Amino acid sequence: MLVKEIKELRNIIKEYKRQGFTIGFVPTMGALHEGHQSLIKRAAKENDKVIVSVFVNPTQFGPTEDYDAYPRNIEKDLETAKEAGSYIVFNPEPSEMYFENKSTSVSVLNLTDKLCGAKRPGHFDGVCLVVSKLFNIVTPDKAYFGQKDAQQVAVLKRMIRDLNFDVEIVECPIIREEDGLAKSSRNTYLSIDERKSALVLSRSLKLAKEALMSGERDAQKIKEIIRNELNLDPLARIDYVEVVDAESLEDVNTIENKILIPIAVYIGKTRLIDNLIF
Amino acid sequence: MLVKEIKELRNIIKEYKRQGFTIGFVPTMGALHEGHQSLIKRAAKENDKVIVSVFVNPTQFGPTEDYDAYPRNIEKDLETAKEAGSYIVFNPEPSEMYFENKSTSVSVLNLTDKLCGAKRPGHFDGVCLVVSKLFNIVTPDKAYFGQKDAQQVAVLKRMIRDLNFDVEIVECPIIREEDGLAKSSRNTYLSIDERKSALVLSRSLKLAKEALMSGERDAQKIKEIIRNELNLDPLARIDYVEVVDAESLEDVNTIENKILIPIAVYIGKTRLIDNLIF
Repeated sequence: MLVKEIKELRNIIKEYKRQGFTIGFVPTMGALHEGHQSLIKRAAKENDKVIVSVFVNPTQFGPTEDYDAYPRNIEKDLETAKEAGSYIVFNPEPSEMYFENKSTSVSVLNLTDKLCGAKRPGHFDGVCLVVSKLFNIVTPDKAYFGQKDAQQVAVLKRMIRDLNFDVEIVECPIIREEDGLAKSSRNTYLSIDERKSALVLSRSLKLAKEALMSGERDAQKIKEIIRNELNLDPLARIDYVEVVDAESLEDVNTIENKILIPIAVYIGKTRLIDNLIF
Repeated sequence: MLVKEIKELRNIIKEYKRQGFTIGFVPTMGALHEGHQSLIKRAAKENDKVIVSVFVNPTQFGPTEDYDAYPRNIEKDLETAKEAGSYIVFNPEPSEMYFENKSTSVSVLNLTDKLCGAKRPGHFDGVCLVVSKLFNIVTPDKAYFGQKDAQQVAVLKRMIRDLNFDVEIVECPIIREEDGLAKSSRNTYLSIDERKSALVLSRSLKLAKEALMSGERDAQKIKEIIRNELNLDPLARIDYVEVVDAESLEDVNTIENKILIPIAVYIGKTRLIDNLIF
């Protein structure tokens, strides 16, 4: 069922709550792929009702980014969501979500000035704003996010803690194509040659994992292993390769606690991300 | 009943909601006076249950402001709240509300760069942060604020709209002493002479109201009437006198729509505010 208006969605959710149903929430920008489906399936397993939002959120795109080009196909998304176990897809117009004279911002400092946050100024402010709004509209018990956007998960966990949102974040593993490429709506931008080159992301992380398994604890060495592999591909251009603390996202020199190794790589004009948690 | 922990309060509120009770919320910094009592009484009339928070919120005080000196008397507050119809007073420690590495901010732009916002940098960020947190903890149906802090009400209304908080703000009239002084926890700072001088605030607004009733529509003239009266008192030092749109807080030249006339005046070292909505 497609819901376009906040008021209508609130009424549905109030009725769910009256009946004592738990609510799982999967916020997306649409173009749903198997990664999203795995989130929806898990939400359907762990909650009585699942709400999927499909909203290409303008405030999280930079002026030179792909807001207009971002793939949209609401009919297919509805089908995909239903197949995975969600009967409600919330798909508001931008004008339903944002007043022209909107003046409120939600920001998470420290965690957002590095990695994708450094490369995409304002991106996480846009994410925090829209997720705050969606949490207040949907009031879910649990919200499902993919580990592929690892920085996003760390930022939202911090926001939930600091603002006392009564929502549990469930972080779900990266879903990959058979050959290892992390599923992403942006993969549709890739040409056939670029699609082949894109494999270098997961391959480089696999090499890093092997080194970690063999006992390597020097973050510089790990980064070198990844960079060397990425540099072998002529279509790949490194945006960043980092080794950071999985919670605080602070740089790590010697690997002792739970770490996140996030990478961002341009394949042609398309910017792809992938990561490894160890 | 005094509640110190967020978890305990959440449990109480979940039980209320399970039983279908509506919840009214009165956020305060304590030192409850008849102004607060009138908010609590109204909340008790309009809701099944009332929660009063008493929290001197450090993030809304500037470094040179009166955070340490701000009056605190939780036993008396408990009694006052109970008398007015609220059995739950939420009185958390600062460490219960804020993590040392808190990194999330909530800001309302445009409405906060003037009036008290201009004079107290960071004040409204602190207010928006703590009110967001309290809304997420208390999840009230209605929240009660005094019109005395008129800019605060305008800012919070905008925040609620922009972040889709499902909370209705109820704005309650200013409660005054018999001689006209607006009730304020900060009135306790005044010496006997200052207490007399403080009457100049309400007196100047009364003159403005009379001029408006007689048809004066020139905002400059109205401001002059107020300034002239305030300047007659030797202990009064004007911080600001403005005539603004009641919703957007934009400056007004010719008075046509609903306006707010907020004034801030130092009486000795104590900064008092008052206002008139017309």
